[in-house]
Amino acid sequence: MASSKQVLIVGGVAGGMSCATRLRRLDEDAKITVVDKGPYVSYANCGIPYALGGVVESEGKLHVQTVDKLKTWFNIDARTNTELKSIQRDEKTATILDLSSGEESSVPYDKLVLALGAESFVPPVEGVDSEHVFTLQTIPNLQEVQAMISKKGCHRAVVIGGGFIGLEAAENLRRLGIEVTIFEFDQHVFPIVDPEIGEVVDEELRKNGVNLKLNARVTKITSASGAEPGLVFAEGQEPVPADLVIMAVGIRSRTAIPKEAGLESGRTGVSVNEFMQTSDPDIYAVGDMVETLNLVTGQPAQTALAGPANRQGRLVADHISGKGIKYRGNLGVSVCQVFGKTVGIVGLSTRNLDRLGIKHEYVTVHPPQHAGCGKILGAQVVGKEGVDKRIDVFATAMRAGMTVEDLEHLELAYAPPYGAAKDAVNMAGFAASNIVRGDVKLVHAGEFASGTRNLEDFQIIDVRGAEEYNQGHLKGAKNIPLVNLRERVDEVERGVPTIVHCKSGYRSYVGYRILAQKGVDVYNLDGGYKSVLDGGYVTIQEA
Amino acid sequence: MASSKQVLIVGGVAGGMSCATRLRRLDEDAKITVVDKGPYVSYANCGIPYALGGVVESEGKLHVQTVDKLKTWFNIDARTNTELKSIQRDEKTATILDLSSGEESSVPYDKLVLALGAESFVPPVEGVDSEHVFTLQTIPNLQEVQAMISKKGCHRAVVIGGGFIGLEAAENLRRLGIEVTIFEFDQHVFPIVDPEIGEVVDEELRKNGVNLKLNARVTKITSASGAEPGLVFAEGQEPVPADLVIMAVGIRSRTAIPKEAGLESGRTGVSVNEFMQTSDPDIYAVGDMVETLNLVTGQPAQTALAGPANRQGRLVADHISGKGIKYRGNLGVSVCQVFGKTVGIVGLSTRNLDRLGIKHEYVTVHPPQHAGCGKILGAQVVGKEGVDKRIDVFATAMRAGMTVEDLEHLELAYAPPYGAAKDAVNMAGFAASNIVRGDVKLVHAGEFASGTRNLEDFQIIDVRGAEEYNQGHLKGAKNIPLVNLRERVDEVERGVPTIVHCKSGYRSYVGYRILAQKGVDVYNLDGGYKSVLDGGYVTIQEA
Repeated sequence: MASSKQVLIVGGVAGGMSCATRLRRLDEDAKITVVDKGPYVSYANCGIPYALGGVVESEGKLHVQTVDKLKTWFNIDARTNTELKSIQRDEKTATILDLSSGEESSVPYDKLVLALGAESFVPPVEGVDSEHVFTLQTIPNLQEVQAMISKKGCHRAVVIGGGFIGLEAAENLRRLGIEVTIFEFDQHVFPIVDPEIGEVVDEELRKNGVNLKLNARVTKITSASGAEPGLVFAEGQEPVPADLVIMAVGIRSRTAIPKEAGLESGRTGVSVNEFMQTSDPDIYAVGDMVETLNLVTGQPAQTALAGPANRQGRLVADHISGKGIKYRGNLGVSVCQVFGKTVGIVGLSTRNLDRLGIKHEYVTVHPPQHAGCGKILGAQVVGKEGVDKRIDVFATAMRAGMTVEDLEHLELAYAPPYGAAKDAVNMAGFAASNIVRGDVKLVHAGEFASGTRNLEDFQIIDVRGAEEYNQGHLKGAKNIPLVNLRERVDEVERGVPTIVHCKSGYRSYVGYRILAQKGVDVYNLDGGYKSVLDGGYVTIQEA
Repeated sequence: MASSKQVLIVGGVAGGMSCATRLRRLDEDAKITVVDKGPYVSYANCGIPYALGGVVESEGKLHVQTVDKLKTWFNIDARTNTELKSIQRDEKTATILDLSSGEESSVPYDKLVLALGAESFVPPVEGVDSEHVFTLQTIPNLQEVQAMISKKGCHRAVVIGGGFIGLEAAENLRRLGIEVTIFEFDQHVFPIVDPEIGEVVDEELRKNGVNLKLNARVTKITSASGAEPGLVFAEGQEPVPADLVIMAVGIRSRTAIPKEAGLESGRTGVSVNEFMQTSDPDIYAVGDMVETLNLVTGQPAQTALAGPANRQGRLVADHISGKGIKYRGNLGVSVCQVFGKTVGIVGLSTRNLDRLGIKHEYVTVHPPQHAGCGKILGAQVVGKEGVDKRIDVFATAMRAGMTVEDLEHLELAYAPPYGAAKDAVNMAGFAASNIVRGDVKLVHAGEFASGTRNLEDFQIIDVRGAEEYNQGHLKGAKNIPLVNLRERVDEVERGVPTIVHCKSGYRSYVGYRILAQKGVDVYNLDGGYKSVLDGGYVTIQEA
């Protein structure tokens, strides 16, 4: 019990702080020191974009613990403005620099916990060092942006990068009444999801007055000079004026000091084992700086999220106290609010599965959500409400190793204010199980867009009503409304591959079953005509 | 494929209709007949209370399929106002009565599917047959109540029964501006949950102007006569005037005809195997009328919910078509909106676990949710937002056989608009795992209320601040604020059982770990002083 271990924790936010407080609860006698190079410890850095827009009412609300409370409640020696400079593994000391006094000192440790986080990546673009260009990762970053806006005013902002931070920054800048343009290198924002999902987010952004520049590589940023505004230039795009530029193109693990100390690193971060030990068993690392097992790919990867960092910190405290609880890896669970819509993903998108060469099949469930499923390898959801719920259910199911058939059998809470008696997760399970059991064969709009399949090779039966058909339909499609399909089934040619579709996929599934039982070689168009229109994948012929 | 089976389905709502449409998709040639004794088929009966309050805008919105659409889309012969009278198992026919014409006929079947549902239970109380007393289960019930309100007006309504339908009815009657009183036999409404949770719902009802009569057994109902209003009488309560009375005290499986035909029944409904076959393999039964395996108790029980009914109907269609997919039983997942609060449960409450003699331990997580966990045997959640999400995550985890330790490791979606980086489900996992691993011992406020434990047997250390302590504290409690606990630890007596508590349980957990490591025989008060106040369990002494 009375170990009196000296534990030095570097980094006083999510992972580091979870480790420190947990360790005190387990070990009253350990000497626990936490250092952080910033002016604060223990704050909710995820809330920073929301503090900008006033959703988190003030910066003060971001603070979880103070140095004083850490002392009185937890007997933790927390030191701000104190930076790690180097690690002397042989003598088990760390050299730290007090940024206020400029004094360097050597701190001995029995166990060292690194929670250095990740650096906002700033691409080497001309003008990124201008005074109106900021990242938005720390409280000082937030203070700088707020000071700039209140001192100089800001009418037009540019956000570079359409991932998490970029989207949250854009939304919160709009809340302040600022004109916002997002530059995104990919074909749609939130590129960890597939285009069908990402494009719904694009639309929501545009609807809320955000200007989108997609497929846009930023090449130059200029400052205002005289009457000329500052401009942001990208290849093949009109330059966009900007009083403020937020760089949000991604992050890079802070691996320099660990590498210098001879600790092993992988492609995306410092390497750790299941107890979060680095290649030196007395040195642990947690949070955005490490790579942990991704359960879908089977490969180590960085997962820069608060939840995993907190859990990792907790497990390090357990391990230091002699408890051998293993970290179980990540599925990659993300959710992001974008104005009135929420978008979420667990596991991998079909695009990323393709890139990694992982074979998969997927289904689209329209009203109201979408899910991509194989083993289960991933799920993506977009919609107004209940998105975070479905992502969490998929995440729990994947964590438990459930199959798509198990999804059919899930018993989920239902009352009229919440979802439907057949939840979207059940529906995705039904649809995916139909494929697994061979009850339905699918084709996807994306396959035609990519040229994997050719529409011309198929007989196309459109089972929507005549009126819907006349408003627009696929090239060469024959209209046999579902209500007439049984009596007109002889008009469908046998022995040729046939696509059946309706608007969203349900009537065509009923039609599919009629045709399949009558001996037609039939495929259902996943997600229906709506997928084609949303995705813009295949040529459509308007009547 | 071309079987041309004759399938007769009795009951055209959830289970029966899911069976009928699924069967058509699997078997184009079957002769499918659906009869229902009511005037409609395929409507969302869960929405009926909401149609009363106008949340579901009109009765029309409740209808999912029409007789006509069932014919044209699915080639299903659906007959309304047609009642099952008897089953002749030897000759495989059913006798049905056309309620419009009064004509009886005999329908042959290869497979018979019973989806008879359950009857609203009307207790044998004087005056229950008065013309202002209604149940609220079917569309005709809804129409009767609406007609009564619009013809005669309604200022004061009484709802008898504080379960699902009762609560939904009360809320929707309030939406119409009607004064509402609920009579509930139990000590709190929504009695499937524990008092700590149920009382939060009580409070929400009162806050929204609903009058509550608890521990109230209704004995008599009188109609208005002359200037005298109708009254509802209960033992030991003032009579309450009522222009309208909704009976919502529960339901009873419709087992009479199956029993008459010699089919086996259990205590709560018709008995079925995993393929939903009754004791006659050519007769299936689904939905509110059957009992299926409860996965927590291991006993068969009725689960009267739309989701299970739909899944059961689907599996019957699968089985008739030669697919052997088993029904996997129920956890019992419920969620109910009560004005601004949501309450949900999966598995069993601690009260019901006690009744069944199932040993368990439980933890309370205050900000913002509560969960009862053992193996995991159940979880209860109450709060403003995100309740349905946490219930679904618990339900998925329980279905997968996860342990409380697995809950710690769940990777759940987080962004500032949704929950916290340490989700309430993770927190419940942390708290429960601390018990499992012996890191903390708990006492519960309820144990003192029930007399299982005596407060006088404990040294009580209150680690809240002096100001909080002075506003009210437990009898005999000694105040040592957490911030002073380390320096004043010698004031805590060794060798006597000691309770440590704060307001909600977190500071006391930190205090617990200090004391435990200093050799004190200590117990944390689960949920803190707040649980004591909320539950009203133990005598408190106001300062």
